[in-house]
Amino acid sequence: MPQVMQPRPPKGMRDFLPDDLIRRQYVFNTVIEVFETFGFEPLQTPALELRQTLHGNLGEEAEKQIFYAQHPQGKEELALRYDLTVPLARVVAQYEGQLSFPFKRYHIAPVWRSERPQRGRYREFYQCDADIVGVAEMTADAEIISLVVTALRRLGFRDFEVQINNRKILTGIAEYVGVPAEQRGGLYRSIDKLDKIGADGVRRELAENGLAPEPIARLMALLDLRGAGLEGLTHLRDALRDIPTVQEGVRELFELAEHLEAFGVPASNYAFDLAMVRGLGYYTGPVFETIITEPNLGSVTGGGRYDGLIGMFRKESLPTTGSSLGIERIIDLMDELNLYPPGLGRTVVQVLVTVFDEHTRPASERLASQLREQGVRTEVVLEDRKIGRQAAYADRKGIPIAAFLGPDEIAAGEVTLKRLADGETRRVPQSEAAATIRSLLP
Amino acid sequence: MPQVMQPRPPKGMRDFLPDDLIRRQYVFNTVIEVFETFGFEPLQTPALELRQTLHGNLGEEAEKQIFYAQHPQGKEELALRYDLTVPLARVVAQYEGQLSFPFKRYHIAPVWRSERPQRGRYREFYQCDADIVGVAEMTADAEIISLVVTALRRLGFRDFEVQINNRKILTGIAEYVGVPAEQRGGLYRSIDKLDKIGADGVRRELAENGLAPEPIARLMALLDLRGAGLEGLTHLRDALRDIPTVQEGVRELFELAEHLEAFGVPASNYAFDLAMVRGLGYYTGPVFETIITEPNLGSVTGGGRYDGLIGMFRKESLPTTGSSLGIERIIDLMDELNLYPPGLGRTVVQVLVTVFDEHTRPASERLASQLREQGVRTEVVLEDRKIGRQAAYADRKGIPIAAFLGPDEIAAGEVTLKRLADGETRRVPQSEAAATIRSLLP
Repeated sequence: MPQVMQPRPPKGMRDFLPDDLIRRQYVFNTVIEVFETFGFEPLQTPALELRQTLHGNLGEEAEKQIFYAQHPQGKEELALRYDLTVPLARVVAQYEGQLSFPFKRYHIAPVWRSERPQRGRYREFYQCDADIVGVAEMTADAEIISLVVTALRRLGFRDFEVQINNRKILTGIAEYVGVPAEQRGGLYRSIDKLDKIGADGVRRELAENGLAPEPIARLMALLDLRGAGLEGLTHLRDALRDIPTVQEGVRELFELAEHLEAFGVPASNYAFDLAMVRGLGYYTGPVFETIITEPNLGSVTGGGRYDGLIGMFRKESLPTTGSSLGIERIIDLMDELNLYPPGLGRTVVQVLVTVFDEHTRPASERLASQLREQGVRTEVVLEDRKIGRQAAYADRKGIPIAAFLGPDEIAAGEVTLKRLADGETRRVPQSEAAATIRSLLP
Repeated sequence: MPQVMQPRPPKGMRDFLPDDLIRRQYVFNTVIEVFETFGFEPLQTPALELRQTLHGNLGEEAEKQIFYAQHPQGKEELALRYDLTVPLARVVAQYEGQLSFPFKRYHIAPVWRSERPQRGRYREFYQCDADIVGVAEMTADAEIISLVVTALRRLGFRDFEVQINNRKILTGIAEYVGVPAEQRGGLYRSIDKLDKIGADGVRRELAENGLAPEPIARLMALLDLRGAGLEGLTHLRDALRDIPTVQEGVRELFELAEHLEAFGVPASNYAFDLAMVRGLGYYTGPVFETIITEPNLGSVTGGGRYDGLIGMFRKESLPTTGSSLGIERIIDLMDELNLYPPGLGRTVVQVLVTVFDEHTRPASERLASQLREQGVRTEVVLEDRKIGRQAAYADRKGIPIAAFLGPDEIAAGEVTLKRLADGETRRVPQSEAAATIRSLLP
């Protein structure tokens, strides 16, 4: 055996012990169930990609964070997956003939980034994406928003808002106020700060960046429409009648609104917001971001239409829209707001079958086996321990029910079941044990 | 956009498109369900470990296959996980105070090895381990075998045998025939070949390795007991009365047999086999390996007791026993023997809600939303397509049921549901759609 070293995982990477992982898996499984009821199919790709698959497709800043991998004798230069969008684009290009379009896929998997580790930021973390490839219509964007809203509601969130805008409207507004294409990035960044620095702050920043007072006034008048929903969009459409990009963007959002209504998305869970700018440059149409509003806990999902991106490995692109659920942030908030169902404990085990003494052990093993066959998650005491220590173990581990099987019970074909939280006890025939355990579970 | 390159994953690594992944996930989920009914808890560790965690703990041959990873600006030397046993040992040492013992954990996760890619052998593949840390008693070994048998039966395998031996018996036999400790590896390797090269072959090989005729004869006489089950073990015990290691090994297997019976493990699914030698050197007690027997398809699980291993990051070791399910091989065999349930299709989607025309689309979207709320996995046609093309899409994708919602149905609050495999059709009120779809599913 080699020397004893201080054991730890790499910096910014986490082990998940059972009690944490049970909560994480509840979140993952809930989200997967919603994705699948929406007809999204699972996709899985390797953790490693060829370096050349990532290079040139992520942007300079992102590429600085890539982890490289290599086998000493291997010829391939590899990299750990940085996101789930590049693998999607690769898969669509590579298996085009095998896939049915529209291709609706979800992908939940870890990605690796060399970020400075800090609270809530890790070097290995899960992403959770759902995208629809091959549909240009607003039906797809509405379905994505409906999916996001349903997933968050199913997880127990109520007070949240999907903020919706359209890149085409932003582009049109920039055109209207006379900002040339190469300076629009700065314009969008200023607009994005509206909530943070206020209208005066945005005005000041735009002036500092050289925009004249008159276009600033025109812009701010338009941004005033942001809170007015579809009515605001109507005003915008009428005011910018001569800007085709705006006309198209507004028409798209009206269509989107119709589909959202038909899909039954609660009106309280979405809003159109002209000042919402998603950071990534690749969006080409509607963009959406979800904010937890009560209490204000920031953004938990982000997405939009990116009709150009799937073309990175393919001559022609395919219209694509989708959203990421910020699953790590969502798990943090679930913890903070305690949104887990009461039955979700610190252990998967539902019942501990105790062992009275070594002579009665076979009876306990038989009962454990019977309960397992009936789908009850059962632990049986494996060591020769006093009964008091067995109960203490169940308690410490958070096992909700203990089964006691002494000589009396065995002779009568019965078992005593005790709910440890409140001491509620039932003595029942062993054949009814599974049903009784289920009725005693929290 | 960068140049168009030929998209592919790294060599020996696989993408799983939905139709494949649906089958894989069925296997994973079935196994997880069995693990959890046995009270095993999930554990998750990072894909990356510190290089020093792996170095010196895997053996020289294994270490040649490690993939290294590094961030260009990072100080840590990293490696991709090679197996799930080293992470278990690290976790037990690191979180000892937080864990409850016995610590029963399962871990299903990819590992990376730079093997020469070939049929059934990959550089990224899943391992699937269940281990019990902290129990020296044979109850734990019996529980592991019961778990393996239950998992394989639940997956649909019937004709398989867990072959059980004990390293202590092998050690004792080597002692008895007079092979010194440093030459026992070769002895075990020869014994392991019994099925392949026959008794004469083993005799010849042992003679070539310098073992004298008399000890060879004594060894072969003992190996003759291999097929005689517990009776054979009794003979062995009586014959090698003076070898304490054999006495202890036989006693352990008798205990194991008692617990296996109490756990209700079918006698046809296990056997004691003195000639079964698990490759890995670290086993210290019972060893087990499962062979699919009808047809003979080789080994699908392997495990045993390794009381020394958990000590690699800890002053004192802890008694540990466990098994790996060769999950990639199991999936290959499930494919080969077609052991999947009939309802498991190529798509997660259960029903395609078609769209009669763009005027009736909102009704289709409303129905889709209602079905999703009721847990039916529903796709709604997102594009403006002729109804014939919509049905063809459902067919091509393997969606079992199509829902038709024309102006007549809408006026009557009804929907026509058609099972595409046989044309079975029902027109029902929309409120009964979910139940009817469930009754029409294969």
